[in-house]
Amino acid sequence: MFEFKLIGEDSKYGARAGIIIVNGIEIKTPVFMPVGTYAAVKTVSPHELYDIDINIILGNAYHLYLRPGVEIIEKMGGIHRFTGWKRAFLTDSGGFQIFSLAQFRKISREGAEFKSHIDGSKHFLTPESVINIEHKIGADIIMPLDVCTTIPIDYKIAENALTTTIEWARRSKKEWESLNTHTNLFGIIQGNIYKELRKRAVEEIVQMDFSGYSVGGLSVGEERAVMYDLTNFVTSLLPKHKPRYLMGVGAPGDILESVIRGIDMFDSVMPTRNARNASVFIPGGTLSIKNSGFKDDSQPIQEGCECYSCRNFSRAYIRHLFNTREILGYRLTTIHNLFYMAKFMEKLRNSIISDNVEDFKKSYYDGLI
Amino acid sequence: MFEFKLIGEDSKYGARAGIIIVNGIEIKTPVFMPVGTYAAVKTVSPHELYDIDINIILGNAYHLYLRPGVEIIEKMGGIHRFTGWKRAFLTDSGGFQIFSLAQFRKISREGAEFKSHIDGSKHFLTPESVINIEHKIGADIIMPLDVCTTIPIDYKIAENALTTTIEWARRSKKEWESLNTHTNLFGIIQGNIYKELRKRAVEEIVQMDFSGYSVGGLSVGEERAVMYDLTNFVTSLLPKHKPRYLMGVGAPGDILESVIRGIDMFDSVMPTRNARNASVFIPGGTLSIKNSGFKDDSQPIQEGCECYSCRNFSRAYIRHLFNTREILGYRLTTIHNLFYMAKFMEKLRNSIISDNVEDFKKSYYDGLI
Repeated sequence: MFEFKLIGEDSKYGARAGIIIVNGIEIKTPVFMPVGTYAAVKTVSPHELYDIDINIILGNAYHLYLRPGVEIIEKMGGIHRFTGWKRAFLTDSGGFQIFSLAQFRKISREGAEFKSHIDGSKHFLTPESVINIEHKIGADIIMPLDVCTTIPIDYKIAENALTTTIEWARRSKKEWESLNTHTNLFGIIQGNIYKELRKRAVEEIVQMDFSGYSVGGLSVGEERAVMYDLTNFVTSLLPKHKPRYLMGVGAPGDILESVIRGIDMFDSVMPTRNARNASVFIPGGTLSIKNSGFKDDSQPIQEGCECYSCRNFSRAYIRHLFNTREILGYRLTTIHNLFYMAKFMEKLRNSIISDNVEDFKKSYYDGLI
Repeated sequence: MFEFKLIGEDSKYGARAGIIIVNGIEIKTPVFMPVGTYAAVKTVSPHELYDIDINIILGNAYHLYLRPGVEIIEKMGGIHRFTGWKRAFLTDSGGFQIFSLAQFRKISREGAEFKSHIDGSKHFLTPESVINIEHKIGADIIMPLDVCTTIPIDYKIAENALTTTIEWARRSKKEWESLNTHTNLFGIIQGNIYKELRKRAVEEIVQMDFSGYSVGGLSVGEERAVMYDLTNFVTSLLPKHKPRYLMGVGAPGDILESVIRGIDMFDSVMPTRNARNASVFIPGGTLSIKNSGFKDDSQPIQEGCECYSCRNFSRAYIRHLFNTREILGYRLTTIHNLFYMAKFMEKLRNSIISDNVEDFKKSYYDGLI
C-alpha cells in the first residue's frame, strides 16, 4: 500500500508539503530520513527515534546482504521484526555502495560483479536478484539497482551507464511485479550532469510507473549550483503526484534549496556522522562540542532546544564525555542533530503549508533556524 | 545526612537487609553499585539507570581529578549537576588506581606521588588533598586515600602499608571534619591476607567512627576461599549498625557469598565491562551473544526478563549489532546485565527479609536465578 497526498505548495517556489502513507505508516513530507546502514541508526535506539517523531529510516541492501545476510533477516520475519523498528523502512539497492565501497567491480548489462569491502568475497548481483534481496529484507520502500558514475564524466560513458540503468529499472519492475510483496518500488533518475540524459531518464523511467522517483548520482562532489540546477531540471519534468527523493542529501541548507526545487524526501549520514565527530547543529551553523571553550559551559548544546540531550545535559558534560570517549557522548550529539533535523523539516513544512517559505528561508540564512 | 537502618537479618547466615538514606536518597541494601569511572556508566544514560531502579553509582576521584579536573566539576555545581544524575554518587579515593594504573608511584607517609596514566604528568596527593578533591566533586559517599598492596605480600610490607593507611584515615577524618560538606566519609579496612592486621585495622578505624566501613584490598587475584574467609573475619569484627562495603566485588556468586558473610554494598566494572565484550548474564551463567548459534535466534537474551533489551530485541539482532560494531549493541547488553544485577540483589534482599536465604542460594546454584 503506497499513497502520496499533496497537502500544499508554496506560491513562490512550488515547494511541496505532502503525506506518504506506506503500509499504514504516515510520513509527512518533506522528510529527512536518518540512515541506519546496518539496520540500526548509529548510537540510538528505535525508541529514541520515535521520541523525535521519526517515521522512516533507511537501511542499505548492499550492507545487509553482506551482514547479517538476507536469509537471516528473512528467517527473523523481515527487517521490522529483526530490528524491532515499528515504523517505515526504506532500503537503498546498493548500486551506490558497489560503486563507492566495493574493492573491485565490473558492471555488465547483465549485472554487477564485485568484491565485498569486508572480506573480499566475490558477489554477482543482477537487478532481479537485488529486488529479491530487498523483498526478503522487507522494507516498505525499495530502490532498484542502478549504475552510478562520477561527476563529471564523458557524455558517452554517462549515456551508456544510463542505458543500463534504464534497462535495469525495467527488469526490476518486472521482477517486482512477479512477487507478492508489500515493498514499494521507486524509479531512479540518473544521467550525470547532462540534461539531455536526465530528460531521457525521466521520460523512460516515468513511463514504467513507479511509486516514487529518486534523483540519483548527485551530491557526489559536484558544485552546489550544478546540483541545484540539475535538481530543478529533473523535478520540473517529474509528475506532480508522486514523491521525489534526492538521494544522499544532506545538509540543512541543501535540503532547503532542494525542497524549494520540488524535492520531498532526503537521506544523509551527515547529521549522525557529524554528531559522532562532535559536530552539533545549531541555528546558524555547527559547533564542535570538543572545543575547550565549552569546558565549563553549563548551557545545553542549543538554548531552548527540547531534545533529550538539551533538556538534561550541559555542553561541559558532553565535552567531557567526548574527551573520555564515553559512548553516551556520541549518543547525545546524535539525538540532538536528528532532533534538529526533524524540527527543521517540520518548520519548513509548516512554512510551505502557510505559504511562508520566503520567511523560513530568510530566517535560515539569518542564522535563526 | 547519612543513616543506615537494618531491616532484617536471616537466621541461618546473618545476611543483612537494610536501607541507607543519604542526602535524601534511599538505597536498599544489599546493593550493587554500577561503576561510572568518568562520571558516566559506560554506554547508558541516567534515565536508563533510573528505569532499572538504580539509586547509587560510583565515580572515581583519581580519574575525575585528571579529567575533566576538579575545578570544572566544582564550577559546574558538583558531580550531580555536572552529570545530571539525580540519585546518589559514591567516589572512590583513587588509592587503588594509583596502585594499579599510574605509570610510576612513590608512597611516603606524607602522601602519594604518581604519574598520570593518561599523559605522564606528575601529581602528588595527600589524604587531605584527596578529601578536598572529593568534597569539591561532591559525591554523597566518599572514601579516604589508602595504601593498596598486592595479595599476598610479606607481612612486614603489609603492616607498614596498613600503618600508613590508618594514619591517613585519621588525617582524612580530621580534614573532612574541618569542611562544611554534604559528603559522608567511610573508613577502609586494609591488612592484606593477615587476620592480625585486619583485626588491628578494624579496631583502629572503627574507633575513629565513620559513616560506614569498606573492606579494601580483596578481589585482587587471591583465591575465592581466602577472600570469603577474610570477608567473614572482618565483618565479624565490624559494628552491626554501620554499612559494610566490599570494594571491587563483583560477580553474582561472589556477591551472594559475601552477603551471607555480612556485606551490604558492592561495586564492580564486571557487569558493564562483560556486557561490552558481548557476555550477558542469565540464570546459571553467561552467554556470549556473538556466538554463531544465535544468528537466527528470535528469543530475547533471557526468556522472561523484563529489561528494555529483552522486551524489544532478539539475540539475533543484538549479535548482528555486535558483529557490525554498532554502539546500540553495547548499550543493550549493558542494560540487560545491570537489570540482571538489580533483580539479583532485589531477590536476595527479599530472601533475607523473608528469612529464606537458603532457598535463594540453592536456586542460584541450581542455575535458576
